[in-house]
Amino acid sequence: MLPAEIIRKKRDGSILSSGEIEEFIGGYVSGEIPDYQASALLMAIFFNGMTPEETAIMTRTMMNSGRTYDLSSDRPLIDKHSTGGVGDKVSLILAPLAAACGLGVPMVSGRGLGHTGGTLDKLESIPGFNVHLTPDEFKKQLTKLGVAMLGQSDDFVPADKKMYALRDVTGTVECIPLLCSSILSKKAASGARGVVMDVKCGSGAFMADIEGARALAHGLTATGKALDLPVRAVITDMSQPLGAAVGNANEVIESIDCLRGDGPADLREITLELTAEMLLLGELESDISTAKEKAAAALDDGKALDIFRKMIEWQGGDVSIVDNPQRLPCDYETVEFLSESDGYMNVTNCRDIGLAALALGAGRRKSSDSIDPAVGLTMLARAGDRISKGQPLVNIHHRAGNGIEECRSYLDSALTVSTDPPLLQRLIIEKIP
Amino acid sequence: MLPAEIIRKKRDGSILSSGEIEEFIGGYVSGEIPDYQASALLMAIFFNGMTPEETAIMTRTMMNSGRTYDLSSDRPLIDKHSTGGVGDKVSLILAPLAAACGLGVPMVSGRGLGHTGGTLDKLESIPGFNVHLTPDEFKKQLTKLGVAMLGQSDDFVPADKKMYALRDVTGTVECIPLLCSSILSKKAASGARGVVMDVKCGSGAFMADIEGARALAHGLTATGKALDLPVRAVITDMSQPLGAAVGNANEVIESIDCLRGDGPADLREITLELTAEMLLLGELESDISTAKEKAAAALDDGKALDIFRKMIEWQGGDVSIVDNPQRLPCDYETVEFLSESDGYMNVTNCRDIGLAALALGAGRRKSSDSIDPAVGLTMLARAGDRISKGQPLVNIHHRAGNGIEECRSYLDSALTVSTDPPLLQRLIIEKIP
Repeated sequence: MLPAEIIRKKRDGSILSSGEIEEFIGGYVSGEIPDYQASALLMAIFFNGMTPEETAIMTRTMMNSGRTYDLSSDRPLIDKHSTGGVGDKVSLILAPLAAACGLGVPMVSGRGLGHTGGTLDKLESIPGFNVHLTPDEFKKQLTKLGVAMLGQSDDFVPADKKMYALRDVTGTVECIPLLCSSILSKKAASGARGVVMDVKCGSGAFMADIEGARALAHGLTATGKALDLPVRAVITDMSQPLGAAVGNANEVIESIDCLRGDGPADLREITLELTAEMLLLGELESDISTAKEKAAAALDDGKALDIFRKMIEWQGGDVSIVDNPQRLPCDYETVEFLSESDGYMNVTNCRDIGLAALALGAGRRKSSDSIDPAVGLTMLARAGDRISKGQPLVNIHHRAGNGIEECRSYLDSALTVSTDPPLLQRLIIEKIP
Repeated sequence: MLPAEIIRKKRDGSILSSGEIEEFIGGYVSGEIPDYQASALLMAIFFNGMTPEETAIMTRTMMNSGRTYDLSSDRPLIDKHSTGGVGDKVSLILAPLAAACGLGVPMVSGRGLGHTGGTLDKLESIPGFNVHLTPDEFKKQLTKLGVAMLGQSDDFVPADKKMYALRDVTGTVECIPLLCSSILSKKAASGARGVVMDVKCGSGAFMADIEGARALAHGLTATGKALDLPVRAVITDMSQPLGAAVGNANEVIESIDCLRGDGPADLREITLELTAEMLLLGELESDISTAKEKAAAALDDGKALDIFRKMIEWQGGDVSIVDNPQRLPCDYETVEFLSESDGYMNVTNCRDIGLAALALGAGRRKSSDSIDPAVGLTMLARAGDRISKGQPLVNIHHRAGNGIEECRSYLDSALTVSTDPPLLQRLIIEKIP
């Protein structure tokens, strides 16, 4: 069928056949079908959607556009993915923790963009840490250690790279089936046999409201079902940063605290919940409470931290940072962001906290930007806390004042201290299915 | 505003500002905005539409993308445009006829594509006829003769050329506001101050059903109003070919018959109706019956034919074809297409009659094809005629048997002879406004 006829078919609301999807996506990746036909099809999909079966076929076609990892392992291979937020360092704790509990975690991560940070950037603040493993190294480490955290090689789901870049400039990012195929094609290609999805919801998330988060969660689980890739979606709060640290090296330090059984309560809670869901998905546990207890024990007895150390060692990083966090990039200066009134702390726009950190150099405006791993924010108060006038709300860690005015201006719009306490969202909002 | 933001705005159902439309279309024509962003916007417009004001702004921006003709004239400058059909040679008769009645007709026409013929192709079957006038020649001829018929120069509405080529391969042709801006940008650029639109309706037309034809007619009149370009839309029947001749040179011969006051009744009727509407639009007449009588008189007394002769002469054509039609390309062979049963003639698919002529070489599959002006069809019966088994329904004029099997197969699917007479549509279906 001609590409234009496939576009018209979707435009008119019909369901595309597997042959049509494979022909179009295959033709687009090979360059036979030009960008302008792909963007027209993507916009038609934006309006008319795709069934879970169509989405699954697109996902599989995208997955097979490049290298896929077939990681035979004694361990159940279960991964976690977050839709992205501010201060979301869960993967750094959860991946070694889940491995310590007996799972295999083949975690392929991305870099930060805009207001959200990226796991890869945080890992790379560890001196020497290598996120580019060969397929053999990846497989070996996963078998022996149970966890490997790496970046996307050029031949990893190239269809997603090409389609995502196109969607970004043609207004077709915010589309559930396209989001689902983008996320799950990478998870399936990395060798995962099950995925726990952390669907963030709130002003710091891609999906600001619960309806959007639910729609994405349902899309992911339905597509997973059609793909024969079990997906469990957990909708979690992103109306304020997770933990206190927002940046890169400082998020690694906070993650190590958590791996020691310490760290902020919200970070520990969400990490345990998501790890427990992974244990259920991998059928190592059958009850959520028992699974959480098992995960908590592996944090508290140092098993997870031990895997984290070994992972740094295996991946060429400076393992001494675990006991000497000052060996991470921390050559920053600190100023305080103070409350101008008495009242209750309120995060009116969590996204702007991410942008405040970006302004300092902790993030990227466009994907070709580089980041400064040392700079970032430490949140000194949480939403609902009683605040006095002049009390510091945030420590701003900057390099030579770079971006500090923009940072302050974002914090001004992100935080208010109000006379009434704000309504607080619970951390774990909903699970699907 | 970034192009992607303009796309998102239309995608989300908002009305674009004139600045946004001008920026996007201007950027697209200049090459700053790539095809893939333009196709995404066009698909968003397909789904969310444009108001008459947005359409008018787009039309004006497209019009101003190249040369426009400013034809000051003593005559009211009124043009006619047809959405295209099979055997539609009305322009060849109407343009000199309207000029004979006192109007100025600056008619810029296109070539045939697919099942529909093109006025330019028909004119070019006249040996020597030059459709490429300079702006000065165009203006001079229009002033002195009242009519000029020409093709689109490369710098004539280049935005439409570029956008139409893109729409053709991205499933965004069938979209009322885009159709309106495409049609009216060319009419406005040619210098017309009013347009009578012949919106064809039926199986041989772009709009097969009355709802589609009405929607297009309303779109055209509403856009014309917003553009300050009066548009009168007449919905006419295209469930069977207009007149008997389908091709190129043979359509010129039939047009000359009509210009002599003879020719098929339907062709004369529709030509008089549309010419009369032009006379009303140009305010030379105020009553449709009087206007039709005036037009009929100019056909019957030879004034229109006289203008036609002069136009051929002015445009370098062989004027002797008017009295010696055998000097037109007619080196074809003829075979008959016979009825296989007794009953009533029924045109089940008029589009296939156009494709039957195309198969012989009278039309184009793609715009770079060339045509054979001699070949074509003569319809020997009209829908509803009583037919005997073995009676010829069509004369097929072919060159050395080229395409004759495909032609017959199209005629098989286009024509049936049934026991019950078909329901006949009236020729002039509706007028808007």
